[in-house]
Amino acid sequence: MWVGDDTAVLTPATPALLLTTDLLVEGIDFDTAYCNGGDIGWKALAASASDIAAMCGQPSHAVVALGLPPSTTVRWVDEFLDGLMGAAGKWDLAVVGGDFSAAGQIVVTVSMIGRPLKETPVLRSGARPGDFICVTGALGGAAAGLAALRSGAPRTGSVGRLVQRQLRPTARVAEASKLADFDVTAMIDVSDGLAVDLGHLVDESGVGCVVDDSLVPIDPDIASMPDADALRLAVTGGEDFELLCTLRGDQAEAAADALGAVGTRLTTIGTVTTTGRRIGRRTLDEWRSEGWEHLRTR
Amino acid sequence: MWVGDDTAVLTPATPALLLTTDLLVEGIDFDTAYCNGGDIGWKALAASASDIAAMCGQPSHAVVALGLPPSTTVRWVDEFLDGLMGAAGKWDLAVVGGDFSAAGQIVVTVSMIGRPLKETPVLRSGARPGDFICVTGALGGAAAGLAALRSGAPRTGSVGRLVQRQLRPTARVAEASKLADFDVTAMIDVSDGLAVDLGHLVDESGVGCVVDDSLVPIDPDIASMPDADALRLAVTGGEDFELLCTLRGDQAEAAADALGAVGTRLTTIGTVTTTGRRIGRRTLDEWRSEGWEHLRTR
Repeated sequence: MWVGDDTAVLTPATPALLLTTDLLVEGIDFDTAYCNGGDIGWKALAASASDIAAMCGQPSHAVVALGLPPSTTVRWVDEFLDGLMGAAGKWDLAVVGGDFSAAGQIVVTVSMIGRPLKETPVLRSGARPGDFICVTGALGGAAAGLAALRSGAPRTGSVGRLVQRQLRPTARVAEASKLADFDVTAMIDVSDGLAVDLGHLVDESGVGCVVDDSLVPIDPDIASMPDADALRLAVTGGEDFELLCTLRGDQAEAAADALGAVGTRLTTIGTVTTTGRRIGRRTLDEWRSEGWEHLRTR
Repeated sequence: MWVGDDTAVLTPATPALLLTTDLLVEGIDFDTAYCNGGDIGWKALAASASDIAAMCGQPSHAVVALGLPPSTTVRWVDEFLDGLMGAAGKWDLAVVGGDFSAAGQIVVTVSMIGRPLKETPVLRSGARPGDFICVTGALGGAAAGLAALRSGAPRTGSVGRLVQRQLRPTARVAEASKLADFDVTAMIDVSDGLAVDLGHLVDESGVGCVVDDSLVPIDPDIASMPDADALRLAVTGGEDFELLCTLRGDQAEAAADALGAVGTRLTTIGTVTTTGRRIGRRTLDEWRSEGWEHLRTR
């Protein structure tokens, strides 16, 4: 019951329904030294909306459970609600309820429902050998933003944009809606890093993959950080919330055109194979061993 | 957005849908000195199922977000899942997903969807002067069970049953289904105590109430605790998860007969009025001032 896709597919009635839940914990998933309440509210909502989008779904309603230390200020709660409602407005979904409790640290659970945009929801498990592997937007920006926050670099220019990628991520809801017009065979959002999430996708699908690391779209703002290993950030950095999907190869170009219409790039980075799992010259496992979980908790 | 009924009514499509979320935090909502993992899993599910039942709804699917200290044992998690799935089985609902995180203390969020059993879901706000005020089962048992756990009394006989009322509460799902056949004008589950929850109901409905304290059904096992103030436990004790509803007066007897068919008593304890809020000789506010929140955190 705890494995597989982030979002549950419910078919008790017509139409089917998607249901997901996401837990964010202070000190694990965010650090109040870098994030204000608004950032946390925004990100909690975005993470769940991204889970629904990754099923090729349209999020519609959310409920929020909030555990707060007794020392929490009213200002913090106001900021949290502003961030939460700002994200809800951006993706046109309704926050319809919640629950409060005291807690020793800030904990936020956002649970969300949505409807599938395709007759059959897109799972992680549908990739077939020969499909193209595609990803929206660019990768590594959120991880670079976290590094910048930790370094205390001024939040201006490129660094400011990277920090926003970390604090105020974008759920690819509009992009999921466009992708619904194509034969998307599998999809996942990049929350734990390309290597880890592609690993989930090929594991669940029982297939292999070959990714050309020169094709991986790297967040252009990372170029402003001279010490950054840009490819490593793009392959292992989490929380970009881009959509990683597999598509029938003859549809990749048309899908890229459709996403271009909403201002988002769709990049083909590789191919689904029967066996073997590589990004560039390294295996997925090699990349995973220095992945996001490792980076984040250093 | 944080006020009103515990469960959100969603009408994006036909049929309408109910959505609720409940957060339980170690040290606030439960104490691991008294509760094992199974108790916590059971209660988390029961609390959400009760929220759906209180809307005259049938719970169907749940997702669970679980934050655990790194020191948590696999045995604890096994017990938790056993309790959770045991409760899910009892009320015939599916646990369809979840999320894990590390946390400094145990935090459990259960989010649940269900369908309304009446064409219009029953809210807290529909009580009308002249309606009868009715409650299922008996009250005070869960609070007495908590007192027994704290005293370290042997968990046998009456005390054992009271402890079970605290640790393994029953959501009144079957009873809600029976009540759906009647003109239930408002309903809430007794999670914070009769005085507090009746207060919510009359506040939301903009009405008053007169409850005859001699009619309040007191858990019979409390009689085995010689020092217990049974009426006070029944009026202010929380977590009994009984259903408190208002009904057209001429239906109270038939509704009681219908609930009797599933083995549960429905007791008329008072009447909805236009103004004034009393249980016995005391006002709701007087009762509330020594209510469950106060008792629980002593």
